[in-house]
Amino acid sequence: MIVAGIEAGGTKFVCSVGSGPDDLRAETRFPTTTPGETIDRAIAFFSEQEAIHGQLEAIGVASFGPVDLHQHSPTFGFITSTPKLNWINTDVLGHLSSSFDVPIGFDTDVNGAALAEGKWGAAQGLNTFIYLTIGTGIGGGALVDGRLLHGLIHPEMGHIPINHNRQRDPFPGNCPYHGDCLEGMAAGSAIEKRWGQKGQELAPDHPAWELEAGYLAQALRSLICVLSPQRIILGGGVMEQAGLLTLVREKTLISLSNYIQHPSITDRIDEYIVPPALGNRAGVLGAIALAIQAIS
Amino acid sequence: MIVAGIEAGGTKFVCSVGSGPDDLRAETRFPTTTPGETIDRAIAFFSEQEAIHGQLEAIGVASFGPVDLHQHSPTFGFITSTPKLNWINTDVLGHLSSSFDVPIGFDTDVNGAALAEGKWGAAQGLNTFIYLTIGTGIGGGALVDGRLLHGLIHPEMGHIPINHNRQRDPFPGNCPYHGDCLEGMAAGSAIEKRWGQKGQELAPDHPAWELEAGYLAQALRSLICVLSPQRIILGGGVMEQAGLLTLVREKTLISLSNYIQHPSITDRIDEYIVPPALGNRAGVLGAIALAIQAIS
Repeated sequence: MIVAGIEAGGTKFVCSVGSGPDDLRAETRFPTTTPGETIDRAIAFFSEQEAIHGQLEAIGVASFGPVDLHQHSPTFGFITSTPKLNWINTDVLGHLSSSFDVPIGFDTDVNGAALAEGKWGAAQGLNTFIYLTIGTGIGGGALVDGRLLHGLIHPEMGHIPINHNRQRDPFPGNCPYHGDCLEGMAAGSAIEKRWGQKGQELAPDHPAWELEAGYLAQALRSLICVLSPQRIILGGGVMEQAGLLTLVREKTLISLSNYIQHPSITDRIDEYIVPPALGNRAGVLGAIALAIQAIS
Repeated sequence: MIVAGIEAGGTKFVCSVGSGPDDLRAETRFPTTTPGETIDRAIAFFSEQEAIHGQLEAIGVASFGPVDLHQHSPTFGFITSTPKLNWINTDVLGHLSSSFDVPIGFDTDVNGAALAEGKWGAAQGLNTFIYLTIGTGIGGGALVDGRLLHGLIHPEMGHIPINHNRQRDPFPGNCPYHGDCLEGMAAGSAIEKRWGQKGQELAPDHPAWELEAGYLAQALRSLICVLSPQRIILGGGVMEQAGLLTLVREKTLISLSNYIQHPSITDRIDEYIVPPALGNRAGVLGAIALAIQAIS
């Protein structure tokens, strides 16, 4: 079997063909420009690869959003109300299916990453878990009872409110919609704006990290209390900071305050809040996983 | 078909037999005392009813918690680490099944209420929605893709953090675990402690209600961003305050700040955040719904 995956990001597209983490046969990446030009480049790459490897059985798209995931909606497979203006109401799925007559899986980038971590990574064998990425922005995807969470639209976990003590942290937050939501306070862009330096330039003992871990711990408590996940995977560039994951685990336990009595949390927090096993491959493998899911 | 339901609350048990909202044939209620005495009273009532109506086909229990909902767990069907000390580690399901050889459905009271609202009430035809009750405490249940949400344990939506501006509201919160979590700030017990009067004694224009609606709106934004529900049902005694529901809808829209672009929210908030159609029958009908689900 060989399938194609598109990790459709707001700044770059990563296209690959293969069947899983140990079988990625080719990959290309290029900047996200106009919808027509960008999607055509993906199509051209996949056509080349078909000439080499034989017919693709499916395509998966793990996309920046918001996206329309409802199969019976007239805009199913569209990127909808994105802040990237020239991508508003882009029919990604329609554009691809006019070139390839195969099943196409389409979901958010974070739902794709969650699916891939469940299939090959840090959440194998679990049916209800969350993949949260803390990068320039913050987003989350989830499987619930073995299926990707969509609901009305899809989760937008970066935009939950958090408890903001303005005396301790006078930074007002930089989310254009909510100010001091989780993303506005704890995304990489918020760290940079608050401290005047990028996160990776701040020393491990800089007070930024105590603050950061506190906000993330609050967010994890919200996620645990609402979704009751069996595990939470924390990805994204901000989480690469040495020591941050440990601090987040500690502060999440403090924030939960022994209210949720389950050994997976109280005794094994190191296995409950984990890094992605697929590392920075979770995105492209998410697209591959969506393609495989589209076949079955 | 006739089934039995137990709404197992921390202060009272309500037992009924029937098959749905238009066919409740008998009901009894009694205080929650010791586990043995209380469950035996339920068993005695159901035995009497079987003599009148014929054999019960199933039993449903919608219980206070926390409870163990994992069928393969050695404590499946137990009330586990509850603050009601004499109920810690009570084998509710085992006790019932020693008297009745029928399928027994067992879940949280709020998951039961969610199931009943989906079957007969305010969420018919939807597959992903939340039932949140704001009473003495705050709890939430949910269906996701048509199935009750369990995950690691089950949701504990009352204990999410909220943004607490201590200058505006110096009340420290009264949750024994988290202080100023949602329940600690917005449950009926918090209203009473903050203002020195029960909620139902506070006039509709009392500043309590602005504050209350603001906290609930924050909570709904969290629920919407994490679970992406198609609808949210708000039950419980606090929501019976005239005007509160309208205020919560208004403040939820303000809190979301047009970030989630979906007509169900932006155009039809009155159909998105709704009261329970089953009113204060959601609890007992939740138990009946769990019994019916246990058969199929």
